[in-house]
Amino acid sequence: MASTKTPTPDTTPKPSTGLPVSPLAPLGGLPPLPEIAGVEFSTANSGIKYKNRDDVMLARLSPGSQVAGVFTRSSTRAGPVLDCEAKIGQPANGQGAAIVVNAGNANAFTGSNGAKAVKAITTATAKAAGVPESRVFSASTGVIGESLPYEKITGILDGMVTNLSPGAMAAAAAAIKTTDTFDKAAKTVIDLDGVPVTIAGFAKGSGMIAPNMATMLVYIFTDADVAQEPLQRMLSRHTDTTFNAITVDGDTSTSDTLLLAATGQSGASKINSLRGRKAKAFSDALHEVMQELAHLVVRDGEGATKFVEIRVTGAASTADGKKAAMSIANSPLVKTAIAGEDPNWGRIVMAVGKSGAKADRDTLSIWFGDVLVAEKGWVSPGYTEAAGAALMKHDKIVITVDLGVGNSDFTAWTCDFTHGYISINADYRS
Amino acid sequence: MASTKTPTPDTTPKPSTGLPVSPLAPLGGLPPLPEIAGVEFSTANSGIKYKNRDDVMLARLSPGSQVAGVFTRSSTRAGPVLDCEAKIGQPANGQGAAIVVNAGNANAFTGSNGAKAVKAITTATAKAAGVPESRVFSASTGVIGESLPYEKITGILDGMVTNLSPGAMAAAAAAIKTTDTFDKAAKTVIDLDGVPVTIAGFAKGSGMIAPNMATMLVYIFTDADVAQEPLQRMLSRHTDTTFNAITVDGDTSTSDTLLLAATGQSGASKINSLRGRKAKAFSDALHEVMQELAHLVVRDGEGATKFVEIRVTGAASTADGKKAAMSIANSPLVKTAIAGEDPNWGRIVMAVGKSGAKADRDTLSIWFGDVLVAEKGWVSPGYTEAAGAALMKHDKIVITVDLGVGNSDFTAWTCDFTHGYISINADYRS
Repeated sequence: MASTKTPTPDTTPKPSTGLPVSPLAPLGGLPPLPEIAGVEFSTANSGIKYKNRDDVMLARLSPGSQVAGVFTRSSTRAGPVLDCEAKIGQPANGQGAAIVVNAGNANAFTGSNGAKAVKAITTATAKAAGVPESRVFSASTGVIGESLPYEKITGILDGMVTNLSPGAMAAAAAAIKTTDTFDKAAKTVIDLDGVPVTIAGFAKGSGMIAPNMATMLVYIFTDADVAQEPLQRMLSRHTDTTFNAITVDGDTSTSDTLLLAATGQSGASKINSLRGRKAKAFSDALHEVMQELAHLVVRDGEGATKFVEIRVTGAASTADGKKAAMSIANSPLVKTAIAGEDPNWGRIVMAVGKSGAKADRDTLSIWFGDVLVAEKGWVSPGYTEAAGAALMKHDKIVITVDLGVGNSDFTAWTCDFTHGYISINADYRS
Repeated sequence: MASTKTPTPDTTPKPSTGLPVSPLAPLGGLPPLPEIAGVEFSTANSGIKYKNRDDVMLARLSPGSQVAGVFTRSSTRAGPVLDCEAKIGQPANGQGAAIVVNAGNANAFTGSNGAKAVKAITTATAKAAGVPESRVFSASTGVIGESLPYEKITGILDGMVTNLSPGAMAAAAAAIKTTDTFDKAAKTVIDLDGVPVTIAGFAKGSGMIAPNMATMLVYIFTDADVAQEPLQRMLSRHTDTTFNAITVDGDTSTSDTLLLAATGQSGASKINSLRGRKAKAFSDALHEVMQELAHLVVRDGEGATKFVEIRVTGAASTADGKKAAMSIANSPLVKTAIAGEDPNWGRIVMAVGKSGAKADRDTLSIWFGDVLVAEKGWVSPGYTEAAGAALMKHDKIVITVDLGVGNSDFTAWTCDFTHGYISINADYRS
């Protein structure tokens, strides 16, 4: 099994969201996105919020495509999320499917109008795309609490269907952005018993990113042939260590949606369960794409100037490791220290202490990169402030915390907390 | 029973911490602080961190004083906290007591040196002040992880005892500050069966303030005569609705300490239990002082320009009400919107949704001040953006959220999240 990833410069026009591109944007932009047998994309400008860019994305999936999904755990979930949750988990039974997404208005907390807009959009999409309404998955992202003028979407769907093309994935990735400063996509190709199988997808989200999913929309497509149940289980399992292991600000949106569609058009034989070498290879490749997309979301965290990996080891349990890692990753004091390139490891001790994870001051060790900073409850004898400060200058910072009380690990990713975050969020809506 | 509070200008010299005074500082500064029979204070400059201000505070309590305490729940508690926890809860048995606090170095995460420093300081204080070492309560606040040069404290204690004075409470309030921009004190006098009884105290803390106590040191004194057990129970109970109901940044320090000492010197008869009119009157007055101090801590939140009260009503339980209120109060997106004077109520919906409290989108109502913003899952018909925006201009903002699923309430207090917070914390230590 081989994996190919070629990060070459992208020439697709990317609609701007008006924000300066994050300094953590990957060099060269998007990788060239592949065509995936059985998936077509189309984008258009609805005029709902953005005037000079496409803001609606339609994907049509070939008959028999299986769809799996993970959604926000918010108790104030938006209408489209409630609709998707109700539809997900059904086997394809030979039917096609469609995904329709708009950016600029989240259709969240819009009372009875919310469900009405979802119904209108999914019904119109079903009709235009020639798929059952029960297989149309919609999402809306943007401002909460404003009524969605859904006619502006339903009125352009026929035209969008006409323009469906397997080559338009990059345009789709661009159309779903809101405060994102760069397009986010990832892909991998694996060999399953001599047949190349592609997994590729894209994401949006740069603020309101927290453990229980984020203001994130993520769409991943593959031409592998996978039954619905193992597809869902792989997606759910990997979400724990990817999208649920990242945080920008500890906030969770009402609209987070992660969909994975498998068209089965690659010609490789079907994966019917989680067991076996082929299922493992596919699962690993899916994890790789999910992790890369999750990292891109953090790299575009609002105002971010540093990409930070928090590795917690020696935890009493994975849950404890996650508690400690996310407590560090969400701490405003840790994140502002990183913004200031201050190796203030005392704040890491504080964040571990408040996390609720089992910890013992006298078994705690902390590294910045490969520099041992603190051990056994005190600063390490060999540590110098200069060594710590030098490491904090990097764009990517790895902080390792060994709790010394068990054998479980968890890794989380976050960004620093800067004046840019305040500027973006103090006047995003007004 | 009468309560007196006279906010007149304070003329006590207040050592500066070098930061511009918060715009939310109470006009006129500290109220004149009373002398409390049985309590003496002394302050001095140790030279540990601050050069031109007193940074050590000593309080001596008369024989028989009862002491109650509440401490941080951090699992990486600092040495002084561990020592206080071990000592608290013992009846006075006619013995005196002392409190000694230094600012500038937290003596936290300093390995075995931490306990050694605590032992040296408490032993020296006991000797200098003439009280048992088991009745000396110490605290240290400031940078975490740097060894405390305790000789600089033990060397000045004899001189400090010589200067003990009942009139030095304001100087004590000033000496324990770190990043605080103004002194924080509160007082009340009640009449218990014809005898005036005073409760007064002071606090420090302006960042790292979160639900489970804060980077807070709070010392409250009274000349009431209260047995240790009811004193502790009143203190613990009121902490839930005061110091554990405020948040600046969701972070929790390793050093939070709240002590309440009752000297019994007022001449009023003894309070032996929580029952009865006298106990109720004392408890209410204590709550008043604790709430005022808690509000002052929020008003001095790092970078704060708005004081925000979050009232959650209609919750399924008090715990749920607290979850929702603290989720709103800790949300960076809510707090940056308030900083930007943006009536972005959608972010409040988001924060309720992620809180884990039982909530139903279609029973949720939101008010800014007395303006009904949203009801039954949507914006209120009478609401105008202009009305919301006008309210957000105020220094004090009350946000009320009715969950509509029960009969329990909880109120939390927080501040906005500004560029000032980032500036203070991105380079506090370096």
